[in-house]
Amino acid sequence: MKNAILRDKTGPLIKEMIITPIAIVDPPLLNAAGLHAPYALRTIVELITTDNISGISEIPGNIAIDAALESARELLIGKDPFQLNAIRYTLENAFGKETAAERGDAPWDQRKLVHIFSAIEVACMDIIGKVTGLPVVDILGGKMRDRVPFSAYLFYKYEGAGGEWGFGLDPTATGWSAARQAKALDPAGIVEQARAMCKEFGFQSIKLKGGVFEPRAEVDAIIALREAFGPGVPLRIDPNALWKVETAIEYGREMEGLLEYLEDPVRGQENMAKVRKSLNTPLATNMCTTSFEDIPTSISLGAEDIILSDHHFWGGLRASLELSRVCDIFGRGLSMHSNSHLGISLAAMVHLGAALPRLPYALDTHYPWQSDEVIAGGRFKFEEGAVAVPREPGLGVELDRASLARLHQNYLDCGLTKRDDQVEMQKVVPGWEFKAVRW
Amino acid sequence: MKNAILRDKTGPLIKEMIITPIAIVDPPLLNAAGLHAPYALRTIVELITTDNISGISEIPGNIAIDAALESARELLIGKDPFQLNAIRYTLENAFGKETAAERGDAPWDQRKLVHIFSAIEVACMDIIGKVTGLPVVDILGGKMRDRVPFSAYLFYKYEGAGGEWGFGLDPTATGWSAARQAKALDPAGIVEQARAMCKEFGFQSIKLKGGVFEPRAEVDAIIALREAFGPGVPLRIDPNALWKVETAIEYGREMEGLLEYLEDPVRGQENMAKVRKSLNTPLATNMCTTSFEDIPTSISLGAEDIILSDHHFWGGLRASLELSRVCDIFGRGLSMHSNSHLGISLAAMVHLGAALPRLPYALDTHYPWQSDEVIAGGRFKFEEGAVAVPREPGLGVELDRASLARLHQNYLDCGLTKRDDQVEMQKVVPGWEFKAVRW
Repeated sequence: MKNAILRDKTGPLIKEMIITPIAIVDPPLLNAAGLHAPYALRTIVELITTDNISGISEIPGNIAIDAALESARELLIGKDPFQLNAIRYTLENAFGKETAAERGDAPWDQRKLVHIFSAIEVACMDIIGKVTGLPVVDILGGKMRDRVPFSAYLFYKYEGAGGEWGFGLDPTATGWSAARQAKALDPAGIVEQARAMCKEFGFQSIKLKGGVFEPRAEVDAIIALREAFGPGVPLRIDPNALWKVETAIEYGREMEGLLEYLEDPVRGQENMAKVRKSLNTPLATNMCTTSFEDIPTSISLGAEDIILSDHHFWGGLRASLELSRVCDIFGRGLSMHSNSHLGISLAAMVHLGAALPRLPYALDTHYPWQSDEVIAGGRFKFEEGAVAVPREPGLGVELDRASLARLHQNYLDCGLTKRDDQVEMQKVVPGWEFKAVRW
Repeated sequence: MKNAILRDKTGPLIKEMIITPIAIVDPPLLNAAGLHAPYALRTIVELITTDNISGISEIPGNIAIDAALESARELLIGKDPFQLNAIRYTLENAFGKETAAERGDAPWDQRKLVHIFSAIEVACMDIIGKVTGLPVVDILGGKMRDRVPFSAYLFYKYEGAGGEWGFGLDPTATGWSAARQAKALDPAGIVEQARAMCKEFGFQSIKLKGGVFEPRAEVDAIIALREAFGPGVPLRIDPNALWKVETAIEYGREMEGLLEYLEDPVRGQENMAKVRKSLNTPLATNMCTTSFEDIPTSISLGAEDIILSDHHFWGGLRASLELSRVCDIFGRGLSMHSNSHLGISLAAMVHLGAALPRLPYALDTHYPWQSDEVIAGGRFKFEEGAVAVPREPGLGVELDRASLARLHQNYLDCGLTKRDDQVEMQKVVPGWEFKAVRW
């Protein structure tokens, strides 16, 4: 066999990993788990190669996951960032398989390996992109679309902007920033929030985070949204698995024809399957089918119609494309879940969203609720609810070092080390407790 | 958002596609479909970019598939070879979904889209590799292993070397080339063939292509191989779905403990599932679960334990990695199928084999049966049954133009336009007819 030009090196190697927990201003948003703290936590990971190329990523902040990442450092130093399969194998061996139970009952995922591999894969892809001149989307097989559509993500909330403002108000705010501070505790408040958010970002579909008030009130909010926006704007509601099966069937039937999909009305694949058999509205999930290990029972039970991907929770961007194939095989739709996040995660979500073969639903994002940013050049712009796919090599975003330092200082100052919405809620409603099923 | 270095071009575009059917010398190998012709057909595809980078690929030769490829030309000219997702979408729209029925009853697959996309994807990846300096395995996430193991692939055969020699003998041949000409029509001949092939290539597992003689004779060959090679050399037999369910159970039970896996003993997922319930030996397939569309019934029926991938039949290398994930989810093992092929296909198989997360089985290859080659520098070397993963950018193989011209002339001269083992068999056994189920 011909010996053509041999690569005489394995490419740049990882020489350094910098893990920076940050705290970003987050408004007092309500959800099934309680109340958002004045700061949301994220962790910024930076990998630096022997030839000083930097790759970055962002994952949900959690001191236990940060510690696990830290413990992975010695496994990663000296590795070739192009060797993602081998890196995944190394991390799998080090951290072992995590069970669905380790995900936890909260709306967000608490498993370590998926977060760590997501952080490392995205940072490595940023490096690969910079070395090869390719935007991450092209490493994923290329763009199916130039703009990735997102959905408005409405929350019941108390008055306030979060951060140092707590429940107070930033008197200098205008436009969406002002609307972002307003309370929204009833259908009228939700409609007002939706109008302001859609005006600012141009969203063309709307999701309401439910699981806060008893179902009647939340269904009334959906009815109010439909009246306000008409049938041309797809609506979704996500009670975060707090409803009983009979509750979900009752209110699901009332909302037939109103919803693009009903997200996690009930807890667990068996209950989801029961509800699904009784409704025409498609059911979506990011709580009952949350890993590849859950797929076989999802299929045998018929747990949902739509799976919400999340590259932080499914183990990276390539795994998310594999999930897309799995969804295709079994007639599942694919959409995307989000948590409070900044522009690095958004960039990764946009590259993935652009590469997905089909994108039948606008993706979730909390981005409008954040005001901080950690990337240079300021926050991403939305046009008609969509984000243009970055065309620069890698993710197409760079760290703003001053912002990173400031947000890390926030982290040190705020004293939070993990998300605990119950504790925050108890500050407002003493004795409040999370219930896995409430109504 | 920061505007970093914008890619000011979309990269080199495809400006030319050259489709070259070739005929390669093939010995008179017997199988369920009849007899190999003196020449096997392959099609070599070359894509050339606007900056004169050439990417190559190889697929099974078939005039109908060549014509379909030809008809895809206008869809491909002007496309960016990095945009594989968009190219697949374009081809899917042009050629439509093909059903399992279009695969055909033969041991090989006759669908057009999977072949075309395989040809285009591999050639594009060869280009991507050359542009970025990456071997194809690194485009697939990197190497899990430096050497990819293959299995000896034994055939019942008539005396002869194929090609211009037909059933005659090349009197100048020595070593494996001589053994390759020998007839093998009984257990002793098969054992002799295995010894010669394993000596030459160092294979450490053995597959026998069955479906030729009545099961008793073929099972006796397996018993003879076990006696000759001992329990340390895994054995497989592939009756190509010619056995009845009761036959498969009877002989399958007799072979319990002798086989690494039993490949396609019976036809169809339902029958495979029946046999599987009656045996401990794992069942493998490349005939009943042959596309992503077949996966749901594979799962619900429990049709097999192991799926044989084939990037020519599953729509490319990335689709094969997706298949690997699907297998992982549902507890299927993954191995690899082959047809008569040259070094371009082998290179692609090796890059894929190196990238697969797990490789529990040595892969199939017909390569020892071929004597021709179309790549520069001569044929691939096997060491201890394995092929070292090319480290050059792209596939790591280049066309030998003189060989290509010669093998294309073979194609023009031999008059074959598609594989038809029944017609060849009838030249030896007048009136012989293919039967979907024989014993």
